[in-house]
Amino acid sequence: MPGIIKERLYTPGPTPLLMQAQARTLAAANVHHRTEAFRKILTETLELLKYYFNTKNDVLVFASSGSGAMEGAVSNLLSPGERILVGTAGKFGERWLSLAQAYGIEAVKVESPYGQPVNIEEMKQKLAQDGPFRAVYIQATETSTAVMNDVESLGEAVKDYPETCLVVDAITGLGTTDLRPDEWGLDIVIGGSQKAVMIPPGLAFVSVSEKAWHLIAQAKLPRFYFDFAKERKNQAKGETAYTPATTLILSLHAALEYIRELGRENLIANAALLAALTREAAKALGLPLFAACSPANAVTAVCAPEGMDSGAIIKELRNRFGAIVANGQGSMKGKIFRLAHLGYFDTADLFAVVAALEIALLKLGYKLELGSGVRAAQQAYLRLVN
Amino acid sequence: MPGIIKERLYTPGPTPLLMQAQARTLAAANVHHRTEAFRKILTETLELLKYYFNTKNDVLVFASSGSGAMEGAVSNLLSPGERILVGTAGKFGERWLSLAQAYGIEAVKVESPYGQPVNIEEMKQKLAQDGPFRAVYIQATETSTAVMNDVESLGEAVKDYPETCLVVDAITGLGTTDLRPDEWGLDIVIGGSQKAVMIPPGLAFVSVSEKAWHLIAQAKLPRFYFDFAKERKNQAKGETAYTPATTLILSLHAALEYIRELGRENLIANAALLAALTREAAKALGLPLFAACSPANAVTAVCAPEGMDSGAIIKELRNRFGAIVANGQGSMKGKIFRLAHLGYFDTADLFAVVAALEIALLKLGYKLELGSGVRAAQQAYLRLVN
Repeated sequence: MPGIIKERLYTPGPTPLLMQAQARTLAAANVHHRTEAFRKILTETLELLKYYFNTKNDVLVFASSGSGAMEGAVSNLLSPGERILVGTAGKFGERWLSLAQAYGIEAVKVESPYGQPVNIEEMKQKLAQDGPFRAVYIQATETSTAVMNDVESLGEAVKDYPETCLVVDAITGLGTTDLRPDEWGLDIVIGGSQKAVMIPPGLAFVSVSEKAWHLIAQAKLPRFYFDFAKERKNQAKGETAYTPATTLILSLHAALEYIRELGRENLIANAALLAALTREAAKALGLPLFAACSPANAVTAVCAPEGMDSGAIIKELRNRFGAIVANGQGSMKGKIFRLAHLGYFDTADLFAVVAALEIALLKLGYKLELGSGVRAAQQAYLRLVN
Repeated sequence: MPGIIKERLYTPGPTPLLMQAQARTLAAANVHHRTEAFRKILTETLELLKYYFNTKNDVLVFASSGSGAMEGAVSNLLSPGERILVGTAGKFGERWLSLAQAYGIEAVKVESPYGQPVNIEEMKQKLAQDGPFRAVYIQATETSTAVMNDVESLGEAVKDYPETCLVVDAITGLGTTDLRPDEWGLDIVIGGSQKAVMIPPGLAFVSVSEKAWHLIAQAKLPRFYFDFAKERKNQAKGETAYTPATTLILSLHAALEYIRELGRENLIANAALLAALTREAAKALGLPLFAACSPANAVTAVCAPEGMDSGAIIKELRNRFGAIVANGQGSMKGKIFRLAHLGYFDTADLFAVVAALEIALLKLGYKLELGSGVRAAQQAYLRLVN
């Protein structure tokens, strides 16, 4: 080993942990979930989640990864024979299609190429011409391509259909973009713990509107562990239907207190700033962004130079600098690398990884002026921050 | 506050945490699940789980509570129109019936009163006369009543039916009773993290036999998050289909290393010893056991004295001594209290809680000779331990 190398996650989940939240789990040796003390913690946590989600709707928590809550957003809303509309432009959009297939539900898809946002106008057309759809599914930000979708416009459109719910996977969207579930009509919004909320994986969150509860009451697909109505009843009393992941809930409570103090808008602005700086750095280094437009704040997907495998860049970053950066998924593997900004990242983290990236690229034979990426980020910082 | 009171869990899950395992979660700040380092941890953990389960079958891990894996044992095995046989004598047996109902599966039940074991002879008769059943469901130990079931005999019987699987909820049975899945034909065995494995809630485990895989390949109920075949494929490579609960997996790895060192049989013997000592103490104090026969090693259910609410005993134990003891569930609430022995409990823990219990009972007006319960436990200790 050439010297001290601190490992740092620059990945879009798991993200760096808020250590004061993590420390709570060590204090959890005596926590039992069927006690007044834990009911108080859970009740407060669910209230704090409403603040984090920016909603007055019920927010529920599950011991699972975000995909579990995605499954719940299918099994709780639909009955056999009903149809859904899916907007997809990446690996997570495709998960809605896999879910529909698993439950034998016909999905009409509006598909854009990787790197593009979902075409919302086309979704509106389909809604008007190909319905009825019981639910519409989309990502707030598609993590695999680092593209943001216009869920506000889609929400406004779905509002016109009283028997149709809008489901938004905001697993990386929460805490990184302005989302207004109540105002925009985002009936079900899904989040996960290992993202902007800065704690380890193992919890999923879901907000549910009154409109969605109305449809859930009629839906006949089978569900048990992810039964939203059952959890609503339990969680209103500070309980969960099945044993909750107590240590993660304690961490979540602490992290949400931190976010409450920081301010939801400041958490979002932080990601937006880091994303903007990253884009400037990439531009200065001559590296194209993968997002053709509407780049996400949560994560930036940068294309590797022509003829260079992004995996080689990622390897240099890890081996030399301990910086763990995500590769592309599926057909994007080897072509892009993804730098995350969601949650517990700061400007210094960004300067560090850009400087490291410059050296990695240089070592791999790419021509660049050392410091030019960092300088571009610094200049953007001075322009954007007082 | 009258003085220092250390809170201690005597509950059948969550159980006291193995602190050296818990500490691993704090070292997890840089863990990403799609890395060689994590794949190695997960692969080792799954191997250690096989040791813990005492099986050569595949063992899978899920980010969920044990109930999630119970759902998977229904949705992965069955097709619409198939029938199942359920042995039930408590709240967890009834969960199998709720699951069958959620999936529209007809369940034939063999039901015993709370406090009795499931009648295995009756199950064998039903198997022979009322079949075909695609699967048979039972608890190794029914936590709500603290009764152990004879899954060995049931396994021997189900072996005769090549198209029928035996599913055993061993969430509190693992690490507390001798289970031999391969020898006895326990096709699917389910465990959870907050039990004898001494770590927080949030993980479920499931072992799957070749016979079960054969039926799973034909089963048509919908499943996604708890898709066993998909996880088998992923976990064989040290991956998971969806983001794993990384910190809990690190804790699990550490706890299983401890169990490997301690020896699975010694972990089981420890629970058996503590259960035996508890029964002697209860007898000396004139408190009947709730289990008419076949008391579990995992937990002992003790009846409150005639006319006394078990909740009052539990409250005294908590307020005076910080000892957190479980009440009965459902119709057993107020009648029994449950002292757990699964996982990280030792003899000194038991002496402490029995002495505390004597004072609690005395304060509530129960006539007893102080020290008589402890003495009976001590005498049993001297009889049973070298």
